[in-house]
Amino acid sequence: MRTVFDEPDEKVRLGSISCEPPKGITKEKARTRLEELGQELFALQDEMWGSKVNAVMVVLQGRDTAGKDGAIKNVAGCLNPRGVNVVSFGVPTLEERQHDFLWRVHRHAPRLGEFAIFNRSHYEDVLVARVHRLVPKKLWRERYGHIADFEELLAEHGTIVLKYFLHISRKEQKKRLLERERSPETAWKLNAGDWEERDYWDEYTEAYEDAISKTAAPHAPWIVVPANAKWYRDLVVAESIVEQLRERRKGWEKTLKDMARERRAALAAWRAERGKR
Amino acid sequence: MRTVFDEPDEKVRLGSISCEPPKGITKEKARTRLEELGQELFALQDEMWGSKVNAVMVVLQGRDTAGKDGAIKNVAGCLNPRGVNVVSFGVPTLEERQHDFLWRVHRHAPRLGEFAIFNRSHYEDVLVARVHRLVPKKLWRERYGHIADFEELLAEHGTIVLKYFLHISRKEQKKRLLERERSPETAWKLNAGDWEERDYWDEYTEAYEDAISKTAAPHAPWIVVPANAKWYRDLVVAESIVEQLRERRKGWEKTLKDMARERRAALAAWRAERGKR
Repeated sequence: MRTVFDEPDEKVRLGSISCEPPKGITKEKARTRLEELGQELFALQDEMWGSKVNAVMVVLQGRDTAGKDGAIKNVAGCLNPRGVNVVSFGVPTLEERQHDFLWRVHRHAPRLGEFAIFNRSHYEDVLVARVHRLVPKKLWRERYGHIADFEELLAEHGTIVLKYFLHISRKEQKKRLLERERSPETAWKLNAGDWEERDYWDEYTEAYEDAISKTAAPHAPWIVVPANAKWYRDLVVAESIVEQLRERRKGWEKTLKDMARERRAALAAWRAERGKR
Repeated sequence: MRTVFDEPDEKVRLGSISCEPPKGITKEKARTRLEELGQELFALQDEMWGSKVNAVMVVLQGRDTAGKDGAIKNVAGCLNPRGVNVVSFGVPTLEERQHDFLWRVHRHAPRLGEFAIFNRSHYEDVLVARVHRLVPKKLWRERYGHIADFEELLAEHGTIVLKYFLHISRKEQKKRLLERERSPETAWKLNAGDWEERDYWDEYTEAYEDAISKTAAPHAPWIVVPANAKWYRDLVVAESIVEQLRERRKGWEKTLKDMARERRAALAAWRAERGKR
Protein backbone atom coordinates (compact mmCIF):
# COMPACT_ATOMS: atom_id res chain seq x y z
CA MET A 1 0.00 0.00 0.00
CA ARG A 2 1.39 3.30 -1.02
CA THR A 3 -0.05 6.51 -2.27
CA VAL A 4 1.61 7.98 -5.31
CA PHE A 5 1.16 11.59 -6.33
CA ASP A 6 2.37 12.22 -9.84
CA GLU A 7 0.16 15.02 -11.10
CA PRO A 8 0.80 18.65 -10.18
CA ASP A 9 -1.78 20.34 -7.98
CA GLU A 10 -3.63 17.21 -6.97
CA LYS A 11 -5.11 17.68 -3.52
CA VAL A 12 -3.07 15.99 -0.78
CA ARG A 13 -4.67 15.11 2.55
CA LEU A 14 -2.13 13.34 4.72
CA GLY A 15 -4.68 12.91 7.49
CA SER A 16 -6.65 10.52 5.30
CA ILE A 17 -3.65 8.33 4.48
CA SER A 18 -2.85 5.55 6.93
CA CYS A 19 0.53 5.34 8.65
CA GLU A 20 -0.01 1.66 9.38
CA PRO A 21 0.74 -1.34 7.20
CA PRO A 22 -2.33 -2.85 5.56
CA LYS A 23 -3.90 -5.97 7.01
CA GLY A 24 -2.73 -9.26 5.64
CA ILE A 25 0.97 -8.63 5.36
CA THR A 26 3.24 -10.00 8.04
CA LYS A 27 6.69 -8.88 9.09
CA GLU A 28 8.14 -12.23 8.02
CA LYS A 29 6.64 -12.03 4.54
CA ALA A 30 7.85 -8.46 4.20
CA ARG A 31 11.41 -9.40 5.14
CA THR A 32 11.52 -12.21 2.60
CA ARG A 33 10.11 -9.96 -0.07
CA LEU A 34 12.62 -7.22 0.79
CA GLU A 35 15.47 -9.65 0.38
CA GLU A 36 14.24 -10.64 -3.08
CA LEU A 37 13.76 -7.01 -4.04
CA GLY A 38 17.23 -6.21 -2.76
CA GLN A 39 18.73 -8.74 -5.12
CA GLU A 40 16.71 -7.47 -8.03
CA LEU A 41 17.73 -3.91 -7.18
CA PHE A 42 21.39 -4.90 -7.12
CA ALA A 43 21.11 -6.45 -10.57
CA LEU A 44 19.22 -3.46 -11.94
CA GLN A 45 21.82 -1.11 -10.53
CA ASP A 46 24.60 -3.02 -12.24
CA GLU A 47 22.98 -2.63 -15.64
CA MET A 48 22.15 1.00 -15.06
CA TRP A 49 25.72 1.58 -13.96
CA GLY A 50 27.15 -0.03 -17.05
CA SER A 51 24.82 1.51 -19.57
CA LYS A 52 24.98 5.08 -18.26
CA VAL A 53 21.59 5.97 -19.70
CA ASN A 54 19.82 6.82 -16.45
CA ALA A 55 20.53 7.92 -12.92
CA VAL A 56 18.37 7.77 -9.80
CA MET A 57 17.75 10.49 -7.28
CA VAL A 58 15.90 9.28 -4.19
CA VAL A 59 14.68 12.02 -1.88
CA LEU A 60 13.76 10.94 1.64
CA GLN A 61 11.66 13.33 3.64
CA GLY A 62 9.78 12.91 6.87
CA ARG A 63 9.48 14.22 10.38
CA ASP A 64 12.07 13.48 13.06
CA THR A 65 12.24 9.73 13.79
CA ALA A 66 10.22 8.91 10.65
CA GLY A 67 12.95 6.49 9.68
CA LYS A 68 14.98 8.18 6.97
CA ASP A 69 18.22 6.70 8.31
CA GLY A 70 16.65 3.28 8.69
CA ALA A 71 15.32 3.26 5.14
CA ILE A 72 18.75 4.26 3.84
CA LYS A 73 20.43 1.50 5.81
CA ASN A 74 18.01 -1.19 4.67
CA VAL A 75 17.30 -0.15 1.10
CA ALA A 76 20.51 1.56 -0.01
CA GLY A 77 22.27 -1.22 1.87
CA CYS A 78 21.16 -3.59 -0.91
CA LEU A 79 23.06 -1.60 -3.51
CA ASN A 80 26.65 -1.83 -4.65
CA PRO A 81 28.32 1.00 -2.71
CA ARG A 82 30.38 1.88 -5.77
CA GLY A 83 27.39 3.52 -7.41
CA VAL A 84 25.60 5.14 -4.48
CA ASN A 85 26.09 8.50 -2.90
CA VAL A 86 24.17 9.16 0.31
CA VAL A 87 23.96 12.83 1.17
CA SER A 88 22.50 14.31 4.35
CA PHE A 89 21.38 17.89 4.14
CA GLY A 90 21.49 19.59 7.50
CA VAL A 91 21.29 23.20 8.55
CA PRO A 92 22.89 25.09 5.63
CA THR A 93 26.52 26.06 6.17
CA LEU A 94 27.74 29.61 5.75
CA GLU A 95 28.92 28.84 2.23
CA GLU A 96 25.63 27.19 1.32
CA ARG A 97 23.68 30.18 2.58
CA GLN A 98 25.64 32.39 0.23
CA HIS A 99 24.12 30.51 -2.71
CA ASP A 100 20.58 29.96 -3.90
CA PHE A 101 18.76 27.11 -2.14
CA LEU A 102 19.21 24.61 -4.98
CA TRP A 103 22.97 25.04 -5.27
CA ARG A 104 23.99 22.59 -2.57
CA VAL A 105 21.59 19.98 -3.87
CA HIS A 106 22.50 20.36 -7.51
CA ARG A 107 26.16 19.60 -6.90
CA HIS A 108 25.16 16.21 -5.48
CA ALA A 109 22.86 15.29 -8.37
CA PRO A 110 23.79 11.77 -9.47
CA ARG A 111 25.95 11.14 -12.50
CA LEU A 112 24.44 8.86 -15.14
CA GLY A 113 24.71 5.31 -13.86
CA GLU A 114 24.63 6.34 -10.22
CA PHE A 115 22.22 6.60 -7.31
CA ALA A 116 22.04 9.68 -5.12
CA ILE A 117 20.07 9.19 -1.93
CA PHE A 118 19.16 12.34 -0.10
CA ASN A 119 18.45 12.39 3.61
CA ARG A 120 16.41 15.59 3.58
CA SER A 121 16.85 17.81 0.56
CA HIS A 122 15.86 21.05 -1.15
CA TYR A 123 12.38 20.40 0.25
CA GLU A 124 13.53 21.63 3.64
CA ASP A 125 13.49 25.07 2.07
CA VAL A 126 9.71 24.87 1.73
CA LEU A 127 9.24 22.98 5.00
CA VAL A 128 11.34 24.16 7.93
CA ALA A 129 11.93 27.49 6.18
CA ARG A 130 8.17 27.98 5.88
CA VAL A 131 7.12 26.66 9.28
CA HIS A 132 9.70 28.71 11.15
CA ARG A 133 9.37 31.73 8.87
CA LEU A 134 13.08 31.69 8.07
CA VAL A 135 12.29 33.47 4.82
CA PRO A 136 9.36 35.67 3.75
CA LYS A 137 6.27 33.95 2.35
CA LYS A 138 6.86 35.50 -1.06
CA LEU A 139 10.22 33.75 -1.23
CA TRP A 140 9.23 30.24 -0.19
CA ARG A 141 6.18 30.35 -2.46
CA GLU A 142 8.42 31.00 -5.44
CA ARG A 143 10.49 27.97 -4.57
CA TYR A 144 7.88 25.40 -5.64
CA GLY A 145 8.28 26.51 -9.22
CA HIS A 146 12.05 26.45 -8.99
CA ILE A 147 11.94 22.94 -7.55
CA ALA A 148 9.64 21.72 -10.31
CA ASP A 149 11.89 23.22 -12.99
CA PHE A 150 15.00 21.77 -11.38
CA GLU A 151 13.54 18.28 -11.19
CA GLU A 152 12.39 18.54 -14.78
CA LEU A 153 15.94 19.41 -15.83
CA LEU A 154 17.26 16.37 -14.00
CA ALA A 155 14.60 14.13 -15.53
CA GLU A 156 15.41 15.34 -19.04
CA HIS A 157 19.01 14.38 -18.40
CA GLY A 158 17.90 10.83 -17.64
CA THR A 159 17.54 11.07 -13.87
CA ILE A 160 14.73 9.09 -12.31
CA VAL A 161 13.53 11.36 -9.50
CA LEU A 162 11.67 9.60 -6.68
CA LYS A 163 10.46 11.47 -3.62
CA TYR A 164 9.34 9.72 -0.47
CA PHE A 165 7.39 11.07 2.44
CA LEU A 166 7.80 8.67 5.35
CA HIS A 167 4.46 9.02 7.04
CA ILE A 168 4.36 8.43 10.80
CA SER A 169 1.66 9.30 13.28
CA ARG A 170 2.05 11.77 16.10
CA LYS A 171 1.70 8.98 18.63
CA GLU A 172 4.34 6.86 16.97
CA GLN A 173 6.77 9.78 16.98
CA LYS A 174 6.31 10.27 20.69
CA LYS A 175 6.98 6.60 21.29
CA ARG A 176 10.17 6.76 19.25
CA LEU A 177 11.45 9.92 20.91
CA LEU A 178 10.92 8.38 24.33
CA GLU A 179 12.62 5.15 23.26
CA ARG A 180 15.63 7.09 22.05
CA GLU A 181 15.77 8.84 25.39
CA ARG A 182 15.61 5.67 27.43
CA SER A 183 18.09 3.56 25.54
CA PRO A 184 21.72 4.16 26.53
CA GLU A 185 22.80 3.23 22.98
CA THR A 186 20.85 6.04 21.38
CA ALA A 187 20.88 8.69 24.10
CA TRP A 188 23.67 10.55 22.31
CA LYS A 189 21.20 11.28 19.50
CA LEU A 190 18.87 13.12 21.90
CA ASN A 191 17.90 16.59 20.94
CA ALA A 192 15.53 18.90 22.74
CA GLY A 193 14.87 20.44 19.31
CA ASP A 194 13.06 17.27 18.23
CA TRP A 195 10.53 17.77 21.00
CA GLU A 196 10.18 21.42 20.13
CA GLU A 197 9.43 20.58 16.51
CA ARG A 198 6.48 18.46 17.64
CA ASP A 199 4.69 21.64 18.61
CA TYR A 200 4.58 22.52 14.92
CA TRP A 201 3.03 19.21 13.86
CA ASP A 202 0.08 20.72 12.02
CA GLU A 203 2.13 23.42 10.35
CA TYR A 204 4.45 20.75 9.00
CA THR A 205 1.50 18.70 7.81
CA GLU A 206 0.26 21.65 5.82
CA ALA A 207 3.71 22.42 4.48
CA TYR A 208 4.19 18.81 3.38
CA GLU A 209 0.78 18.69 1.72
CA ASP A 210 1.58 21.80 -0.28
CA ALA A 211 5.08 20.65 -1.18
CA ILE A 212 3.79 17.30 -2.40
CA SER A 213 0.91 18.80 -4.30
CA LYS A 214 2.89 21.55 -5.98
CA THR A 215 5.88 19.46 -7.07
CA ALA A 216 4.32 16.12 -7.98
CA ALA A 217 4.90 15.26 -11.62
CA PRO A 218 4.93 12.12 -13.75
CA HIS A 219 8.73 12.36 -13.99
CA ALA A 220 9.14 13.21 -10.28
CA PRO A 221 6.43 11.47 -8.26
CA TRP A 222 5.88 11.72 -4.54
CA ILE A 223 5.28 8.46 -2.72
CA VAL A 224 3.60 8.59 0.69
CA VAL A 225 4.89 5.61 2.66
CA PRO A 226 3.06 4.21 5.71
CA ALA A 227 6.01 4.31 8.11
CA ASN A 228 4.71 3.41 11.56
CA ALA A 229 6.10 -0.10 11.02
CA LYS A 230 9.75 -0.03 10.02
CA TRP A 231 9.63 -3.33 8.16
CA TYR A 232 6.74 -2.15 6.03
CA ARG A 233 8.32 1.21 5.33
CA ASP A 234 11.47 -0.43 3.95
CA LEU A 235 9.45 -2.79 1.80
CA VAL A 236 7.42 0.01 0.24
CA VAL A 237 10.46 2.13 -0.55
CA ALA A 238 12.36 -0.80 -2.08
CA GLU A 239 9.36 -1.99 -4.05
CA SER A 240 8.64 1.37 -5.57
CA ILE A 241 12.26 1.95 -6.58
CA VAL A 242 12.45 -1.47 -8.20
CA GLU A 243 9.21 -0.90 -10.10
CA GLN A 244 10.48 2.35 -11.51
CA LEU A 245 13.75 0.81 -12.65
CA ARG A 246 12.35 -2.44 -13.96
CA GLU A 247 10.62 -0.79 -16.87
CA ARG A 248 13.92 0.68 -18.09
CA ARG A 249 15.80 -2.59 -17.92
CA LYS A 250 15.30 -3.62 -21.54
CA GLY A 251 16.79 -0.35 -22.74
CA TRP A 252 19.85 -0.75 -20.55
CA GLU A 253 20.39 -4.30 -21.73
CA LYS A 254 20.26 -3.19 -25.33
CA THR A 255 22.85 -0.51 -24.68
CA LEU A 256 25.13 -3.02 -22.95
CA LYS A 257 24.84 -5.39 -25.89
CA ASP A 258 25.78 -2.64 -28.31
CA MET A 259 28.72 -1.68 -26.12
CA ALA A 260 29.91 -5.28 -25.97
CA ARG A 261 29.77 -5.56 -29.76
CA GLU A 262 31.82 -2.39 -30.19
CA ARG A 263 34.35 -3.44 -27.57
CA ARG A 264 34.83 -6.84 -29.13
CA ALA A 265 35.38 -5.28 -32.54
CA ALA A 266 37.91 -2.82 -31.11
CA LEU A 267 39.78 -5.62 -29.37
CA ALA A 268 39.85 -7.72 -32.55
CA ALA A 269 41.19 -4.74 -34.50
CA TRP A 270 43.84 -4.17 -31.86
CA ARG A 271 44.89 -7.83 -31.99
CA ALA A 272 45.14 -7.76 -35.79
CA GLU A 273 47.22 -4.60 -35.65
CA ARG A 274 49.49 -6.08 -33.01
CA GLY A 275 49.89 -9.27 -35.06
CA LYS A 276 51.26 -7.24 -37.96
CA ARG A 277 53.98 -5.67 -35.81
CA MET B 1 48.09 -14.05 5.73
CA ARG B 2 48.91 -10.53 4.79
CA THR B 3 52.05 -8.52 4.55
CA VAL B 4 51.94 -5.15 6.22
CA PHE B 5 54.46 -2.45 5.46
CA ASP B 6 54.36 0.32 8.01
CA GLU B 7 57.92 1.63 8.12
CA PRO B 8 59.25 4.02 5.49
CA ASP B 9 61.96 2.73 3.18
CA GLU B 10 61.59 -0.91 4.08
CA LYS B 11 62.54 -3.05 1.09
CA VAL B 12 59.50 -4.39 -0.77
CA ARG B 13 59.80 -7.45 -2.99
CA LEU B 14 56.40 -8.31 -4.42
CA GLY B 15 57.85 -11.34 -6.22
CA SER B 16 58.48 -13.00 -2.88
CA ILE B 17 54.94 -12.47 -1.61
CA SER B 18 52.38 -15.10 -2.54
CA CYS B 19 49.23 -14.23 -4.44
CA GLU B 20 47.52 -17.40 -3.23
CA PRO B 21 45.59 -17.99 -0.02
CA PRO B 22 47.55 -19.92 2.59
CA LYS B 23 46.90 -23.63 3.04
CA GLY B 24 44.35 -24.59 5.63
CA ILE B 25 41.71 -21.98 5.01
CA THR B 26 38.68 -22.97 2.99
CA LYS B 27 36.30 -20.80 1.03
CA GLU B 28 33.44 -21.80 3.33
CA LYS B 29 35.31 -20.81 6.48
CA ALA B 30 36.34 -17.55 4.88
CA ARG B 31 32.75 -16.69 3.95
CA THR B 32 31.52 -17.35 7.48
CA ARG B 33 34.32 -15.30 8.93
CA LEU B 34 33.64 -12.45 6.48
CA GLU B 35 30.03 -12.37 7.57
CA GLU B 36 31.02 -12.05 11.22
CA LEU B 37 33.56 -9.38 10.39
CA GLY B 38 30.96 -7.53 8.37
CA GLN B 39 28.69 -7.32 11.38
CA GLU B 40 31.50 -6.16 13.61
CA LEU B 41 32.50 -3.57 11.02
CA PHE B 42 28.94 -2.27 10.86
CA ALA B 43 28.84 -1.85 14.64
CA LEU B 44 32.25 -0.18 14.68
CA GLN B 45 31.20 2.19 11.96
CA ASP B 46 28.14 3.21 13.90
CA GLU B 47 30.20 4.23 16.91
CA MET B 48 32.78 5.97 14.80
CA TRP B 49 30.01 7.81 13.02
CA GLY B 50 28.42 8.97 16.24
CA SER B 51 31.58 9.95 18.06
CA LYS B 52 33.20 11.87 15.17
CA VAL B 53 36.70 11.29 16.53
CA ASN B 54 38.11 9.36 13.59
CA ALA B 55 37.58 8.82 9.91
CA VAL B 56 38.77 6.04 7.61
CA MET B 57 40.39 6.37 4.21
CA VAL B 58 40.75 3.06 2.41
CA VAL B 59 42.90 3.16 -0.71
CA LEU B 60 42.51 0.23 -3.08
CA GLN B 61 45.23 -0.23 -5.64
CA GLY B 62 46.06 -3.10 -7.94
CA ARG B 63 46.49 -4.03 -11.55
CA ASP B 64 43.53 -4.39 -13.91
CA THR B 65 41.23 -7.23 -12.79
CA ALA B 66 42.94 -7.40 -9.37
CA GLY B 67 39.49 -7.10 -7.80
CA LYS B 68 39.17 -3.54 -6.58
CA ASP B 69 35.50 -3.43 -7.53
CA GLY B 70 34.86 -6.82 -5.98
CA ALA B 71 36.49 -5.85 -2.70
CA ILE B 72 34.42 -2.67 -2.58
CA LYS B 73 31.23 -4.59 -3.22
CA ASN B 74 31.90 -7.22 -0.58
CA VAL B 75 33.62 -5.19 2.13
CA ALA B 76 32.10 -1.72 1.76
CA GLY B 77 28.83 -3.57 1.20
CA CYS B 78 28.87 -4.46 4.90
CA LEU B 79 28.80 -0.81 5.91
CA ASN B 80 25.91 1.55 6.45
CA PRO B 81 25.79 3.49 3.15
CA ARG B 82 25.05 6.67 5.06
CA GLY B 83 28.67 6.95 6.17
CA VAL B 84 30.57 5.68 3.13
CA ASN B 85 31.76 7.49 0.08
CA VAL B 86 33.20 5.36 -2.70
CA VAL B 87 35.26 7.36 -5.17
CA SER B 88 36.76 6.06 -8.40
CA PHE B 89 39.69 8.00 -9.75
CA GLY B 90 40.01 7.62 -13.49
CA VAL B 91 42.00 9.50 -16.09
CA PRO B 92 42.16 13.05 -14.71
CA THR B 93 39.64 15.46 -16.19
CA LEU B 94 40.66 18.76 -17.70
CA GLU B 95 39.83 20.56 -14.48
CA GLU B 96 41.76 18.05 -12.40
CA ARG B 97 44.81 18.43 -14.60
CA GLN B 98 44.80 22.15 -13.95
CA HIS B 99 45.47 21.43 -10.27
CA ASP B 100 48.26 19.66 -8.40
CA PHE B 101 47.90 15.87 -8.30
CA LEU B 102 46.60 15.75 -4.72
CA TRP B 103 43.80 18.24 -5.26
CA ARG B 104 41.20 15.84 -6.59
CA VAL B 105 41.93 13.36 -3.84
CA HIS B 106 41.96 15.86 -1.00
CA ARG B 107 38.45 17.04 -1.76
CA HIS B 108 37.19 13.51 -1.21
CA ALA B 109 39.01 12.99 2.09
CA PRO B 110 36.48 11.61 4.57
CA ARG B 111 34.84 13.80 7.17
CA LEU B 112 35.22 12.67 10.77
CA GLY B 113 32.87 9.77 11.31
CA GLU B 114 32.91 8.70 7.68
CA PHE B 115 34.59 6.17 5.41
CA ALA B 116 36.10 7.14 2.08
CA ILE B 117 36.93 4.21 -0.14
CA PHE B 118 39.12 5.00 -3.10
CA ASN B 119 39.15 2.86 -6.20
CA ARG B 120 42.60 3.96 -7.40
CA SER B 121 43.93 7.15 -5.90
CA HIS B 122 46.79 9.63 -5.81
CA TYR B 123 49.08 6.62 -6.18
CA GLU B 124 48.27 6.48 -9.88
CA ASP B 125 50.45 9.58 -10.16
CA VAL B 126 53.50 7.54 -9.19
CA LEU B 127 52.32 4.41 -11.02
CA VAL B 128 50.79 4.97 -14.45
CA ALA B 129 52.43 8.41 -14.61
CA ARG B 130 55.83 6.83 -14.01
CA VAL B 131 55.43 3.72 -16.16
CA HIS B 132 54.15 5.66 -19.15
CA ARG B 133 56.42 8.63 -18.57
CA LEU B 134 53.49 11.03 -18.44
CA VAL B 135 55.63 13.38 -16.36
CA PRO B 136 59.41 13.77 -16.03
CA LYS B 137 61.23 11.58 -13.52
CA LYS B 138 62.12 14.59 -11.40
CA LEU B 139 58.44 15.31 -10.93
CA TRP B 140 57.15 11.85 -10.00
CA ARG B 141 60.06 11.32 -7.62
CA GLU B 142 59.05 14.42 -5.69
CA ARG B 143 55.54 13.08 -5.31
CA TYR B 144 56.44 10.39 -2.77
CA GLY B 145 57.28 13.08 -0.25
CA HIS B 146 54.12 15.00 -1.01
CA ILE B 147 52.05 11.85 -0.57
CA ALA B 148 53.70 11.06 2.77
CA ASP B 149 53.10 14.60 4.01
CA PHE B 150 49.49 14.55 2.83
CA GLU B 151 48.73 11.27 4.55
CA GLU B 152 50.38 12.51 7.73
CA LEU B 153 48.13 15.56 7.65
CA LEU B 154 45.08 13.34 7.33
CA ALA B 155 46.26 11.06 10.13
CA GLU B 156 46.81 14.00 12.46
CA HIS B 157 43.23 15.03 11.79
CA GLY B 158 42.07 11.60 13.01
CA THR B 159 41.89 9.79 9.68
CA ILE B 160 42.88 6.15 9.70
CA VAL B 161 44.66 5.70 6.38
CA LEU B 162 44.79 2.13 5.07
CA LYS B 163 46.34 1.30 1.72
CA TYR B 164 45.81 -2.02 0.00
CA PHE B 165 47.70 -3.55 -2.86
CA LEU B 166 45.59 -6.36 -4.29
CA HIS B 167 48.26 -8.76 -5.41
CA ILE B 168 47.43 -11.02 -8.36
CA SER B 169 49.74 -13.08 -10.52
CA ARG B 170 50.34 -12.51 -14.20
CA LYS B 171 48.71 -15.84 -15.00
CA GLU B 172 45.62 -15.04 -12.94
CA GLN B 173 45.24 -11.72 -14.72
CA LYS B 174 45.33 -13.41 -18.11
CA LYS B 175 42.67 -15.85 -16.98
CA ARG B 176 40.45 -13.02 -15.77
CA LEU B 177 40.87 -10.93 -18.91
CA LEU B 178 39.93 -13.91 -21.06
CA GLU B 179 36.94 -14.69 -18.87
CA ARG B 180 35.72 -11.14 -19.19
CA GLU B 181 36.05 -11.44 -22.93
CA ARG B 182 34.12 -14.68 -23.17
CA SER B 183 31.22 -13.86 -20.92
CA PRO B 184 28.41 -11.95 -22.61
CA GLU B 185 27.57 -10.31 -19.26
CA THR B 186 30.95 -8.66 -18.93
CA ALA B 187 31.97 -8.11 -22.55
CA TRP B 188 30.97 -4.46 -22.33
CA LYS B 189 33.84 -3.98 -19.86
CA LEU B 190 36.39 -5.14 -22.45
CA ASN B 191 39.24 -2.84 -23.14
CA ALA B 192 42.17 -3.41 -25.44
CA GLY B 193 44.08 -1.07 -23.11
CA ASP B 194 44.00 -3.74 -20.37
CA TRP B 195 45.92 -6.10 -22.61
CA GLU B 196 48.35 -3.38 -23.55
CA GLU B 197 49.07 -2.63 -19.89
CA ARG B 198 50.15 -6.24 -19.41
CA ASP B 199 53.24 -5.51 -21.49
CA TYR B 200 54.38 -3.22 -18.68
CA TRP B 201 53.98 -5.82 -15.94
CA ASP B 202 57.53 -5.53 -14.61
CA GLU B 203 57.59 -1.75 -14.78
CA TYR B 204 54.41 -1.66 -12.70
CA THR B 205 55.89 -4.12 -10.21
CA GLU B 206 58.86 -1.82 -9.72
CA ALA B 207 56.65 1.25 -9.46
CA TYR B 208 54.43 -0.45 -6.85
CA GLU B 209 57.43 -1.60 -4.83
CA ASP B 210 58.80 1.91 -4.71
CA ALA B 211 55.43 3.47 -3.91
CA ILE B 212 54.83 1.05 -1.06
CA SER B 213 58.32 1.39 0.32
CA LYS B 214 58.46 5.17 0.15
CA THR B 215 55.04 5.90 1.60
CA ALA B 216 54.62 3.18 4.24
CA ALA B 217 54.23 4.65 7.71
CA PRO B 218 52.79 3.54 11.05
CA HIS B 219 49.85 5.89 10.54
CA ALA B 220 49.42 4.93 6.87
CA PRO B 221 50.36 1.29 6.37
CA TRP B 222 50.36 -0.63 3.11
CA ILE B 223 48.80 -4.06 3.19
CA VAL B 224 49.72 -6.50 0.44
CA VAL B 225 46.71 -8.77 -0.06
CA PRO B 226 46.98 -12.18 -1.74
CA ALA B 227 44.25 -11.66 -4.33
CA ASN B 228 44.27 -14.65 -6.67
CA ALA B 229 41.30 -16.03 -4.74
CA LYS B 230 38.51 -13.51 -4.48
CA TRP B 231 37.07 -14.93 -1.27
CA TYR B 232 40.42 -14.70 0.46
CA ARG B 233 41.07 -11.18 -0.79
CA ASP B 234 37.81 -9.94 0.71
CA LEU B 235 38.50 -11.63 4.00
CA VAL B 236 41.95 -10.08 4.34
CA VAL B 237 40.73 -6.58 3.54
CA ALA B 238 37.81 -6.82 5.96
CA GLU B 239 39.94 -8.35 8.69
CA SER B 240 42.60 -5.70 8.53
CA ILE B 241 40.10 -2.84 8.56
CA VAL B 242 38.32 -4.31 11.56
CA GLU B 243 41.58 -4.80 13.43
CA GLN B 244 42.55 -1.19 12.91
CA LEU B 245 39.19 0.08 14.12
CA ARG B 246 38.75 -2.30 17.02
CA GLU B 247 41.53 -0.71 19.03
CA ARG B 248 39.83 2.68 18.86
CA ARG B 249 36.47 1.39 19.98
CA LYS B 250 36.87 2.14 23.68
CA GLY B 251 37.63 5.77 22.94
CA TRP B 252 34.56 6.12 20.74
CA GLU B 253 32.35 4.56 23.38
CA LYS B 254 33.62 6.97 25.97
CA THR B 255 32.88 9.92 23.71
CA LEU B 256 29.35 8.63 23.07
CA LYS B 257 28.73 8.25 26.78
CA ASP B 258 29.86 11.81 27.42
CA MET B 259 27.63 13.02 24.62
CA ALA B 260 24.65 11.15 26.03
CA ARG B 261 25.20 12.69 29.45
CA GLU B 262 25.34 16.19 27.99
CA ARG B 263 22.28 15.61 25.83
CA ARG B 264 20.26 14.29 28.73
CA ALA B 265 21.21 17.29 30.83
CA ALA B 266 20.26 19.68 28.02
CA LEU B 267 16.92 17.95 27.58
CA ALA B 268 16.20 18.08 31.31
CA ALA B 269 17.04 21.79 31.37
CA TRP B 270 14.77 22.38 28.39
CA ARG B 271 11.92 20.52 30.08
CA ALA B 272 12.33 22.50 33.29
CA GLU B 273 12.34 25.75 31.34
CA ARG B 274 9.26 24.71 29.41
CA GLY B 275 7.50 23.75 32.63
CA LYS B 276 7.94 27.28 33.96
CA ARG B 277 6.29 28.83 30.91
